Amino acid sequence: MIFFRSDYSQGAHPKVMDALMKTNLEHSDGYGMDAHCEHAAQMIKDLIGIQDCDVHMMVGGTPCNVTVIAASLKPYESVIAARTGHAYFHETGAVEATGHRVVAMEGINGKLTPEIIDQALTEYQDEHTPKPRMVYISQPTEIGSIYSKEEMAAISTKCKEHDLLLYVDGARLGSALTCKANNMSIRELASYCDAFYIGGTKNGALFGEALVIKNKQMNENFRFMIKRQCGLLAKGRLLGVQFEALLDGGMDSIYFSMAAHANRMADKLKEGLAAMNVRFCGDSQTNQIFPIFRTDVVRELEKDFFFYEWEPEKDGKTAIRLVTSWGTDESDVDAFLNRVREIIK
Amino acid sequence: MIFFRSDYSQGAHPKVMDALMKTNLEHSDGYGMDAHCEHAAQMIKDLIGIQDCDVHMMVGGTPCNVTVIAASLKPYESVIAARTGHAYFHETGAVEATGHRVVAMEGINGKLTPEIIDQALTEYQDEHTPKPRMVYISQPTEIGSIYSKEEMAAISTKCKEHDLLLYVDGARLGSALTCKANNMSIRELASYCDAFYIGGTKNGALFGEALVIKNKQMNENFRFMIKRQCGLLAKGRLLGVQFEALLDGGMDSIYFSMAAHANRMADKLKEGLAAMNVRFCGDSQTNQIFPIFRTDVVRELEKDFFFYEWEPEKDGKTAIRLVTSWGTDESDVDAFLNRVREIIK
Amino acid sequence: MIFFRSDYSQGAHPKVMDALMKTNLEHSDGYGMDAHCEHAAQMIKDLIGIQDCDVHMMVGGTPCNVTVIAASLKPYESVIAARTGHAYFHETGAVEATGHRVVAMEGINGKLTPEIIDQALTEYQDEHTPKPRMVYISQPTEIGSIYSKEEMAAISTKCKEHDLLLYVDGARLGSALTCKANNMSIRELASYCDAFYIGGTKNGALFGEALVIKNKQMNENFRFMIKRQCGLLAKGRLLGVQFEALLDGGMDSIYFSMAAHANRMADKLKEGLAAMNVRFCGDSQTNQIFPIFRTDVVRELEKDFFFYEWEPEKDGKTAIRLVTSWGTDESDVDAFLNRVREIIK
Amino acid sequence: MIFFRSDYSQGAHPKVMDALMKTNLEHSDGYGMDAHCEHAAQMIKDLIGIQDCDVHMMVGGTPCNVTVIAASLKPYESVIAARTGHAYFHETGAVEATGHRVVAMEGINGKLTPEIIDQALTEYQDEHTPKPRMVYISQPTEIGSIYSKEEMAAISTKCKEHDLLLYVDGARLGSALTCKANNMSIRELASYCDAFYIGGTKNGALFGEALVIKNKQMNENFRFMIKRQCGLLAKGRLLGVQFEALLDGGMDSIYFSMAAHANRMADKLKEGLAAMNVRFCGDSQTNQIFPIFRTDVVRELEKDFFFYEWEPEKDGKTAIRLVTSWGTDESDVDAFLNRVREIIK
Repeated sequence: MIFFRSDYSQGAHPKVMDALMKTNLEHSDGYGMDAHCEHAAQMIKDLIGIQDCDVHMMVGGTPCNVTVIAASLKPYESVIAARTGHAYFHETGAVEATGHRVVAMEGINGKLTPEIIDQALTEYQDEHTPKPRMVYISQPTEIGSIYSKEEMAAISTKCKEHDLLLYVDGARLGSALTCKANNMSIRELASYCDAFYIGGTKNGALFGEALVIKNKQMNENFRFMIKRQCGLLAKGRLLGVQFEALLDGGMDSIYFSMAAHANRMADKLKEGLAAMNVRFCGDSQTNQIFPIFRTDVVRELEKDFFFYEWEPEKDGKTAIRLVTSWGTDESDVDAFLNRVREIIK
Repeated sequence: MIFFRSDYSQGAHPKVMDALMKTNLEHSDGYGMDAHCEHAAQMIKDLIGIQDCDVHMMVGGTPCNVTVIAASLKPYESVIAARTGHAYFHETGAVEATGHRVVAMEGINGKLTPEIIDQALTEYQDEHTPKPRMVYISQPTEIGSIYSKEEMAAISTKCKEHDLLLYVDGARLGSALTCKANNMSIRELASYCDAFYIGGTKNGALFGEALVIKNKQMNENFRFMIKRQCGLLAKGRLLGVQFEALLDGGMDSIYFSMAAHANRMADKLKEGLAAMNVRFCGDSQTNQIFPIFRTDVVRELEKDFFFYEWEPEKDGKTAIRLVTSWGTDESDVDAFLNRVREIIK
Repeated sequence: MIFFRSDYSQGAHPKVMDALMKTNLEHSDGYGMDAHCEHAAQMIKDLIGIQDCDVHMMVGGTPCNVTVIAASLKPYESVIAARTGHAYFHETGAVEATGHRVVAMEGINGKLTPEIIDQALTEYQDEHTPKPRMVYISQPTEIGSIYSKEEMAAISTKCKEHDLLLYVDGARLGSALTCKANNMSIRELASYCDAFYIGGTKNGALFGEALVIKNKQMNENFRFMIKRQCGLLAKGRLLGVQFEALLDGGMDSIYFSMAAHANRMADKLKEGLAAMNVRFCGDSQTNQIFPIFRTDVVRELEKDFFFYEWEPEKDGKTAIRLVTSWGTDESDVDAFLNRVREIIK
Repeated sequence: MIFFRSDYSQGAHPKVMDALMKTNLEHSDGYGMDAHCEHAAQMIKDLIGIQDCDVHMMVGGTPCNVTVIAASLKPYESVIAARTGHAYFHETGAVEATGHRVVAMEGINGKLTPEIIDQALTEYQDEHTPKPRMVYISQPTEIGSIYSKEEMAAISTKCKEHDLLLYVDGARLGSALTCKANNMSIRELASYCDAFYIGGTKNGALFGEALVIKNKQMNENFRFMIKRQCGLLAKGRLLGVQFEALLDGGMDSIYFSMAAHANRMADKLKEGLAAMNVRFCGDSQTNQIFPIFRTDVVRELEKDFFFYEWEPEKDGKTAIRLVTSWGTDESDVDAFLNRVREIIK
């Protein structure tokens, strides 16, 4: 069985495993109060060119999103997100579990725009509605699209106009930063938002995300919040060690080369399928693509390949999700394309 | 610097690291829906001699406690715990964050008794108070003591009488099961409660706890709860792989030999100090001990050893906490005893 | 200034005030444990023809909705509602404050349908989404439309098929039951749902709603829930006394005659405006209507009449909301119609 | 049956009922945005001699406490209270329902002291415990005692030292202010705290409490919080109208004369019983007293009088609670004393 199921189906990049092995018997203080976490934080500050910020090593993406939202909002405040946004659509109501509404708006290709934000503000403007206070976006989005520099700048400006915090979910940030369509550096991205995270789980770590908070108010007693939200890892140094390995070399680190590889594999899949006149849902530019096949083709493919069906069948056709990762072999991509060719010929 | 700071200051037992390395490039489905988690769960069912239960691989102890409590109680229900209980005293209000009161009772040597439970029930008996519905105990307790078989059986009986769920926090369960004073098997413990967890973080895992739920009602849609509480790990198999390694061999596995080692090291420390007429807070039988020194002795000791001060200074004396673990070298124990001998002679 | 602002701009019907005066110096036990509440509850059981149910006297509509939802759902469960539903749109996130998502669906004329419920179930079907467990509808809806008997029966059937609880917000229930288009008796309505409330605040009470819960599971320890949600009134008997007065005479009580009057006043407004070729938003059959005027007409009208603007101006036109009540004088309706006639002639 | 059960067993003072009758058919805007609420707020500002504060008309004491706490604290913050405090002991966990711990301390005669606050701060001082941020006290306490001016000033000073907010629950504030032992004016009390409320429910209103918030940060968007916590009354003017009637005349208003009467009745009971050598629990100075009788005496008394048993029987004796109110007839007090005299003679 060949996996295009997710970008978290394998363990970690060998260099990450190596770092964990080498440091395994070191003693250090718990809960992320150790030299590895401190060093990794400094590496990130240097990478994004911002020293006056705080970096927290988090266990996963959902804890990241939920802790940031719960720490930043007053009880009656809400967060605006695209309907496809992970914090709305794939976290089993974990945001609501902290007492906040996610104001879910229909996005355009998975993205919010200043106009959509305005629309939310128009609908939520008196004391009988939960006051919007944050905008949540994902880069790349959950359907593989990316915000251009100009698009993110425009959202950032809109947020400042309306005293909205801007938070960027970077679960697959490497993939966005290294895809062909991208025109925004990590430093630019960091400059536009109040907080964002650099995702490790989906790009070569065993687990872990590095959360960057620029806004002092959002960061106040943030470690209390991590603990309260059950996200403070006893052996916090595991996160520091992994990010040291992932980001060693900065823009030349494996973090970026792994993501670039995943994108290349997805591009090859996409181009190969397009050449066979396969059509796609949405317009992904990163490491997830959503081809649409006749359902009988899907049934054949799933004998050898493991992937998600993305949407319920419609008119005899089914969209599937193919995800590539740092560990995807090019031969697997070829195998998939060949199999499709055989089936649909 | 020699660490007696905690039992989570190092990484994992080499066999655990080995297992992670060997399986690193395997592909598997996410969120704990994989063969390793399934196998580890089966190993645990066999170990405790109960097939009709559910095992969930959890990231840490606080997520375990909080998810179980939030899944089991109705909004107006509360959980009875000793004031020193971790869920009350060391989780930054994470239980309250899910809307439930922890009814904190003064324990006896860190333990609840049937009488103390009765006292709580007497105080909480009308609709103006949050109805007690669960009893939370830790085995061993946070101050190192253990429940005997008879004590736990009595609590279990009391709980059944009053329709209270019994949940056992086993963050250091190995240490309880392997200490000299213990007279209760893991099978007996499992038989007395509705749910408990086998702690990995504090006994040789990188992280992870195996939660066993016998009570069907508590387990209903439990995976929704794990996700909602931000505790569902994408690469869930990491937990399965670790518990496979930890429990390989059952009662002869490293899980028990590591704990026994930690206990031996603590016993040696305790006996060595007692021989020097050092006195202790509480009466620990496991891998945490709480010697009391003159504060100037503590100041000297902390130059070479890293540990917690346990209580504020009183009458010129300070209690400290020394914790041993699977990785504690006997030479470190000797070094500590020698240093104390030098200072106080 | 003539008020068409709401149906809660005045105090209570004189008979209600009378009953409060007459019983004012009686002593009774607190929190609704008194003979008036008991009697009112019995009157309601007789009215709806169901003895095996529980009736709780609640302070207001939002406490009613929120307490029912929080009492009925497990933490990971959600409630399906129309986007215009009060519990979603006008309660400042009070449902989310209890940890639950409201799954907001685009309704049809403010109403849910079995097909819309199916659509929600299709979108929310795995453990990464908050499991739908309740359907919330309002009768009449917040935009004045009503469910026919057949429509509500179909929703009820759909709910039973999918193990969804059906809850009906009856803030303006009297208005639905007495409007010309209605073909469903209160007994039929009660038979279709698991719980509903008979609204007092918007139909002649000072405040108060009578919540009827048929489903035993939803009612378990419900009074604990009322208190926990801050809704247990010390002088609970005030609610019982008011409902005794409101419902004295059953279907011939002032509860129904007041609502019928409000509907007649709204019908007269609607017909009068329609005769002047005024158009309306939505298709209300009850005591709220939503005429659309040129914005300059609205500006003139608001000099003499007090009402809400309903939607932001569009193409020079503004929709307003006119609400009639038990206390609306026919002369006020005439005054409004005359004033419109003068302005737009 | 003669009621000494509570001070909320009857309706409202006739002047309050009168005011409600007179204004019953007035139309006004909803949710407390009306002239009566505005006027009552101004009367209160004048009464306490502070113009720069906000007054919110609340439905009851629990909503008051919970909304203030939830509005003021960050998610990881806690509130320090006496174990007997209403917000801890008699609200079914409504504070925890908003995600906050109440740090319950053993009080002295129901009261906190600076030393007790220090003790709480010592126990709660790292990121693994929910950070104390507010002190909650009741004046008078739930067991009838009062804080002297000096005691409250000392608490206020302690709070300022540690950046703790001070909130005073004034459910029976009138009783404290008018009792013989009191040496603190309402202006002094207002000067010591960040927020407090003037209780109406237990002193002659149908329901309602006037919440005064001096601290701007606690008041930010407070009306959103009231709505979110389900406490925004549609016919908010009912609260304004009642407080206009209660406070008409300021210190000479019925608010104070009613409370003084209740205190006199309690004093007469206390002195009469003391003369018969009856002993008491605690040392109440206000309108609740807690005499201890042989249980057989209690059984006789409860044939003619309705009251709470206060504590479980002990050594054949039972403590009961007697509460007097504005509506207590002196003849009822005499009847009680006579009956005791007969029984125990």
